[in-house]
Amino acid sequence: LNRVLLTGASGFIGRRVLRPLLELGFEVHAVGRAGPPPESDDRVVWHRADILADAQRAAVVQDVNASHLLHLAWYAEPGAFWSARENVLWVAASVRLANEFLHAGGRRIVGAGTCAEYEWGRPVLAEPSTPLRPATLYGVCKDATQRVVRAAAEQAGASFAWGRVFFLYGPGEHPARLVSSLARALVRGEEAQATEGTQQRDFLHVDDVASAFAALLNSSVAGPVNIASGEAVEVREIAKTLARIAGRPELLALGARPTPENEPASIVGDASRLRGELDWEPSIPLQQGLSETLAWWHERLASGGPEHERLPGERSS
Amino acid sequence: LNRVLLTGASGFIGRRVLRPLLELGFEVHAVGRAGPPPESDDRVVWHRADILADAQRAAVVQDVNASHLLHLAWYAEPGAFWSARENVLWVAASVRLANEFLHAGGRRIVGAGTCAEYEWGRPVLAEPSTPLRPATLYGVCKDATQRVVRAAAEQAGASFAWGRVFFLYGPGEHPARLVSSLARALVRGEEAQATEGTQQRDFLHVDDVASAFAALLNSSVAGPVNIASGEAVEVREIAKTLARIAGRPELLALGARPTPENEPASIVGDASRLRGELDWEPSIPLQQGLSETLAWWHERLASGGPEHERLPGERSS
Repeated sequence: LNRVLLTGASGFIGRRVLRPLLELGFEVHAVGRAGPPPESDDRVVWHRADILADAQRAAVVQDVNASHLLHLAWYAEPGAFWSARENVLWVAASVRLANEFLHAGGRRIVGAGTCAEYEWGRPVLAEPSTPLRPATLYGVCKDATQRVVRAAAEQAGASFAWGRVFFLYGPGEHPARLVSSLARALVRGEEAQATEGTQQRDFLHVDDVASAFAALLNSSVAGPVNIASGEAVEVREIAKTLARIAGRPELLALGARPTPENEPASIVGDASRLRGELDWEPSIPLQQGLSETLAWWHERLASGGPEHERLPGERSS
Repeated sequence: LNRVLLTGASGFIGRRVLRPLLELGFEVHAVGRAGPPPESDDRVVWHRADILADAQRAAVVQDVNASHLLHLAWYAEPGAFWSARENVLWVAASVRLANEFLHAGGRRIVGAGTCAEYEWGRPVLAEPSTPLRPATLYGVCKDATQRVVRAAAEQAGASFAWGRVFFLYGPGEHPARLVSSLARALVRGEEAQATEGTQQRDFLHVDDVASAFAALLNSSVAGPVNIASGEAVEVREIAKTLARIAGRPELLALGARPTPENEPASIVGDASRLRGELDWEPSIPLQQGLSETLAWWHERLASGGPEHERLPGERSS
């Protein structure tokens, strides 16, 4: 039996990964600071614990005694996460979590990395060839975590993979993030402000990101794997598509926000490991995913429900 | 006033660094799991705390409110330290220590790294040009710690340096280490077993290592700095010198121990940053240092005192 301990289970990716894990036959034990969300699948066992709290974390690892660890939890406050000192706390908690899991006999660890581990400025970022030269505290901390957990797993004879997440979007995303902020403004009939948007990014729908993580966990693929579409899309194309689908092209204000200095022209992942070794393909075309996101905002704003799916106090990606 | 918080103060390097720190005008606050050693200088303020215990560590950082942090503590059990899971605990404790120190307003951090962070197999290991490709869990964990602490210090506007320790020896070293084990055997009149000893290593006397760390802390030199002599010495030359000084050349058994597989032919540091930017020179020639070490073993074995200076339960380098 494959039993997975999932951290960040209430987060943007985490809550989408439950179903694909169940479909792959995992017994799923989800950890979060809050309890289970209302619509949670009965087959998921929820454990209330704060991964940053040593005693709580050690206890849940011991209790669950999982064969697999899918570690998605991290500090994810939009904007702030790039340089917040919480990143350092997550390094400490993550390496100790891995240590405890391995010591309890765990066999496979998959963690969530980031495209920000790479040296930016190259047209395509590839796992084996692009240098790791993170420019932010967030990127440094993710990279260092990967180095330690990989070596600890190797030492313990366990297997390890690291999914480097690129850009993502989808229903329930925090409204401060790019696609959500535009979708929200368009649905509210407000000006949708963006940069000129000539920078190219690699976007995946959050459900595709989640299914890629589930597939990676269920494989024996080792080392870093880009969780990426492999396709470069200009940010302004995404903005224009959203505005067109929303039927409000006149609300789109490209150039209303200044393009940040040092903004890389391109952040696009080489997806050949993901597609080749995992035989995985994204299932949600960009246009369809953006439609869904707009529909979610229509529903949410009409109903007056919470504007994203993060639970109160939850800090997971 | 420069006030330094020193971890690993009861360790092999730590107890030697107290005097040079005092001589440089630092107010020295020493942290260890045990209390002050009997012969401790009155000017040193001792704090009893376990750096691995979150609450104890956070409290001592808060209490001392230091401007400088010299972090030498790590798991150092001879042999075991290369692959022990304690390395991972020390990553967690070290990055949290740095975080807490920086948050309390600390201005400069110097940490103890290792030549094992480098890719071995090159004739000389240099900070700016030799790739970091540690082959052991110990090396990975030291390297990862350096990456996180450097980025956290930079984010906080503090300065940071990282002294990469090569090989060291001296009075009080653990008897399982190379020079100590040979000196102890020679003084006891037992066969002094070594490998063929054709491998070249970079050795410094522990007092020189300590004075280099004190000088580094007192400078504004940033980033990694090899704590190395820059000179390649064959292990068998050290063994022969010891046997000659001891007057027992017949006890030396070169080749009695197998040379480990994958033993690098050379581990020698480029010392030009240390010598050039810090204007630091080693003060103890190898022959003199080996003499002292033998004299220490004579005295210690005659008096029946403890065979090394590590305090009971102390885990610092």
